[in-house]
Amino acid sequence: MAHTAELIAVGTELLLGNIANTDAQMLSEGLSILGITVHYHTVVGDNPRRLKEALEIARNRADIIITTGGLGPTYDDLTKQTIAEAFGRKLKLHEDILEEIRGYFEKRGVTMPENNTQQAMLPEGCTVFTNPVGTAPGCAIEENGTHVLMLPGPPYECRYMFENRAVPYLMGLTDGVIVSHNLRIFGIGESAVDEKVHDLTASSNPTLAPYARVGECFLRATAKAETAEKAEEMLKPLMDEVKRRLGDAVYGTDVENMDEVVTGILKKRGLTLSAAESCTGGLFSKHMTDLPGSSAYFRGGVVSYATDLKHSILGVKSETLERYGAVSEETAREMAEGCRRVCGTDLAISITGVAGPDRDDRDNEVGTVYIGLAHEGGTICKKVFAGFGRGRGRVRSSAVQHTFDLLRRFLLELPLN
Amino acid sequence: MAHTAELIAVGTELLLGNIANTDAQMLSEGLSILGITVHYHTVVGDNPRRLKEALEIARNRADIIITTGGLGPTYDDLTKQTIAEAFGRKLKLHEDILEEIRGYFEKRGVTMPENNTQQAMLPEGCTVFTNPVGTAPGCAIEENGTHVLMLPGPPYECRYMFENRAVPYLMGLTDGVIVSHNLRIFGIGESAVDEKVHDLTASSNPTLAPYARVGECFLRATAKAETAEKAEEMLKPLMDEVKRRLGDAVYGTDVENMDEVVTGILKKRGLTLSAAESCTGGLFSKHMTDLPGSSAYFRGGVVSYATDLKHSILGVKSETLERYGAVSEETAREMAEGCRRVCGTDLAISITGVAGPDRDDRDNEVGTVYIGLAHEGGTICKKVFAGFGRGRGRVRSSAVQHTFDLLRRFLLELPLN
Repeated sequence: MAHTAELIAVGTELLLGNIANTDAQMLSEGLSILGITVHYHTVVGDNPRRLKEALEIARNRADIIITTGGLGPTYDDLTKQTIAEAFGRKLKLHEDILEEIRGYFEKRGVTMPENNTQQAMLPEGCTVFTNPVGTAPGCAIEENGTHVLMLPGPPYECRYMFENRAVPYLMGLTDGVIVSHNLRIFGIGESAVDEKVHDLTASSNPTLAPYARVGECFLRATAKAETAEKAEEMLKPLMDEVKRRLGDAVYGTDVENMDEVVTGILKKRGLTLSAAESCTGGLFSKHMTDLPGSSAYFRGGVVSYATDLKHSILGVKSETLERYGAVSEETAREMAEGCRRVCGTDLAISITGVAGPDRDDRDNEVGTVYIGLAHEGGTICKKVFAGFGRGRGRVRSSAVQHTFDLLRRFLLELPLN
Repeated sequence: MAHTAELIAVGTELLLGNIANTDAQMLSEGLSILGITVHYHTVVGDNPRRLKEALEIARNRADIIITTGGLGPTYDDLTKQTIAEAFGRKLKLHEDILEEIRGYFEKRGVTMPENNTQQAMLPEGCTVFTNPVGTAPGCAIEENGTHVLMLPGPPYECRYMFENRAVPYLMGLTDGVIVSHNLRIFGIGESAVDEKVHDLTASSNPTLAPYARVGECFLRATAKAETAEKAEEMLKPLMDEVKRRLGDAVYGTDVENMDEVVTGILKKRGLTLSAAESCTGGLFSKHMTDLPGSSAYFRGGVVSYATDLKHSILGVKSETLERYGAVSEETAREMAEGCRRVCGTDLAISITGVAGPDRDDRDNEVGTVYIGLAHEGGTICKKVFAGFGRGRGRVRSSAVQHTFDLLRRFLLELPLN
C-alpha cells in the first residue's frame, strides 16, 4: 500500500521567522527515500486550538502524520497533549522514561528540574521513541490506520530520532527493505547529467533521481527488496551503468563532500599538504581544518592576499608578478612551489583569481582562477572559470571545489580535464 | 485593524526535501516587523487541486495570503492560474509586462523562449509587482477583504519582491508608517539580555523584541506612527535606554555583523591588518576577505596550523613553544608580533586554541582560545572560552567573533573585558 505523509511543525519561533523549518527538509528527503509521498507541510505556533485544527485537516488527507517540536517541558507538552486529545487517548506517566531523563541530567551533574517530569507523560498505547541525544522522548500512535509520529524539534535531535526511531517504525509499515546510495558528481552541470542518464530515471525499482545543490548535483539510487542484500544486488548494475556514463565526474558514493574524499586519500598515504591562497583568502584552509585530526595531513599555509606578500613570504619572483600579474599561471606555479618550500610539505596548492565584483587591473574576468599544485616531481597548474561569475561568494566556494577536484585527480592519476 | 497572514509555498522540490523553505522564514520575519501575525505556513506541490484546497483553507483563517513559487514558465503558471480560478478571475495578457520580460532576455543577448509569454498573463484587476531581478512578475488581488500576494520562489527574487513590492502594498493596508531598527549585541547571553531589558519588551508601540541567532542575539525596536520622522522620534528614547543598560555590548545598529563594524573602522582610519591563525585554520581571514575591496585593509597572513610553522614562518621562539605550549598567552603574543613583522601591517591578530573534539596535549579544555593583537604601541592578549565547548564548528566561529570583538574594543578604546 502506498503511504501519504504530512508534516506538521509546531513552534511559534517558525512563524516569527527566527528559524527556518529545516526539519521538514530533512524529513521530506528521508521519506522520499522510503517511497513515502509527502503532500503537505504545515507549520503552526504553540497554540493547541490551531494545532488541533491542523491535525483534523491532516488526518483527512494523509495516513502518516509526523509532528516536530512542542515536546519540551516549557510548552506543557503541547504536542503530545493535543494529539492525545484529538485521537481520544490519555497521557500516562512512563516510569522507565522518567528514569532515563533523570539519568540524562545526572550524567551532566545536574538535578532534573521538576517540570521535566512532563516529558515522561506519553499517550497510552503508544510506541515509545527513546531519545539518547536529548531529554524529550518521541512516540507514535496508530488509530484506524492513521499513524502519528511525534519527534523533537531541535534539528540534531530530530534527525537522530528520525533515522534511528521513525525510519525503523515506518519500514515496519511496508513490506521489504529500502536501500539507497548517493552518487556525488563534480564538474558536470545538472542538465548535462540529466541528458546522460535520463533513460535510467524512468525505472521504478530501482529508481534513480537527480538532486541539485548549490554548485553541485548528485544522483540517488534507491531499491526496494525483501532483504538488504537483494536491494544491493538490484542497485549494483544501475550504479555501475551511471559510473560508466559519467566517468570520473563521479567522485564518491555516500560521502559527505569532496573534502572527505581528498583528506581520506592524504591520510591513507601519509601525505602532507599546505596551501597558498589569494582570492579565496583562507577558505580552502578552513575546509582542510574542518575535520578533527586534520593536523595529520594539513600543516597550514599562507594567505597572500596582498600581492607583495606573494613575493616576500612565498618567494614569487618580482619579475613574474610584474610581467604576468598576480592572476596568472606563472604566479600560481611559483606560489605553490614557494608554499611547499616554506611549509615543508609533500604537496602544496595555490589559488589565485578574480573573486569580483570587478575585473582585476589586467582585465581578467570575474571567476578566472588559476590553481597550482606543487609536488615532488614538479608543478601542475589548471585554469578554471569558477562560479560562472555569480557573485563573490560563489566564485570563492567554487574555486575551493575545483581545488579539491584537482587534488583528487592528481592523487588518483585521473585526467586533469 | 489587525491582520492575519498565511504563507503558502508552492513547489514539489520542497516536498522532496531538495530545498528548505527559507522564503517562509524571510517573509515571517518581515511580516512580524509590519505587525502582521502569521498563524500558519503551508507547503504544497506543483499540483493545482491541492493548491486550491490549501487556498480554500487559508482564506477561511487569514485575510492576507502570500504565495511563493509556481510562477515560472515551466509550471504552466500553476499558482496564478489556480488563484485566479479560486477567486473567480480570468488571466489577462499584460503587454507592458511582456515587453519587460523580453527586455530582460535581450539584455542578456538571448531571445525570449516562447513559453515565457505565459509569465505576462496575470489575473484581471490585479496590482502588478514588476520583477527587475528575474523574469516572473508577481501580483496581488483583493476579494472581499482578502488579499492574495503572489511572489516568485527563488530566494533572491522572493526577498527583493517582498521588500520592494509586497511591503509597500501591505503598508498601504494599514494607517501610518512602520520603522524598525536592529540593535546587535555581542558578549551577553540571551537570558542576561532579557533580564536587563525585560520591562521594556512589555510596551506595545514602540515595541522591543529579542531574537536569538546561533552564538548571538539581537533586539529589534519597532515603532508605528503617521510619518517616518515621528516613528524615529518614538524609537530614539527606547534605543538610548537599551544602549544605556547594555553598554558596549551593543556593537552596532542595523549592521550585518561585527565584521562590517570592524572593517568599517579599519577602512576609515586607513589601517592595515594581518592574521596568524592556528585553531581557526583560515576562518578569520576568510571573513576578512568576504567583502569586496578588502585588500584596502587586509593584507593576508599565515595559517600556522602545525606548531613548527609558528616558529619557522612567524618566528615564535622554540623555547616559548616548548615551555608554554602552542595554546598559551606567550605563543599568541609572539604569533601576533611575528605576523605583524612578516606581513608589514599596522595591526596583526593571532588566534591559537583548542577546537576539539579533544583536549590538547597540555590538557587545555576544548574552547580555550588565546587571541593576540600586536600594534605599534605593544601587544595585548585575551583568553576566551569560545563556543562553550559545543563542537568544533562552534568553537571556531565563536573564536572568530571574539577576535572581531577584541579588535572593535581596541580600535574604539573600550574596556577589553
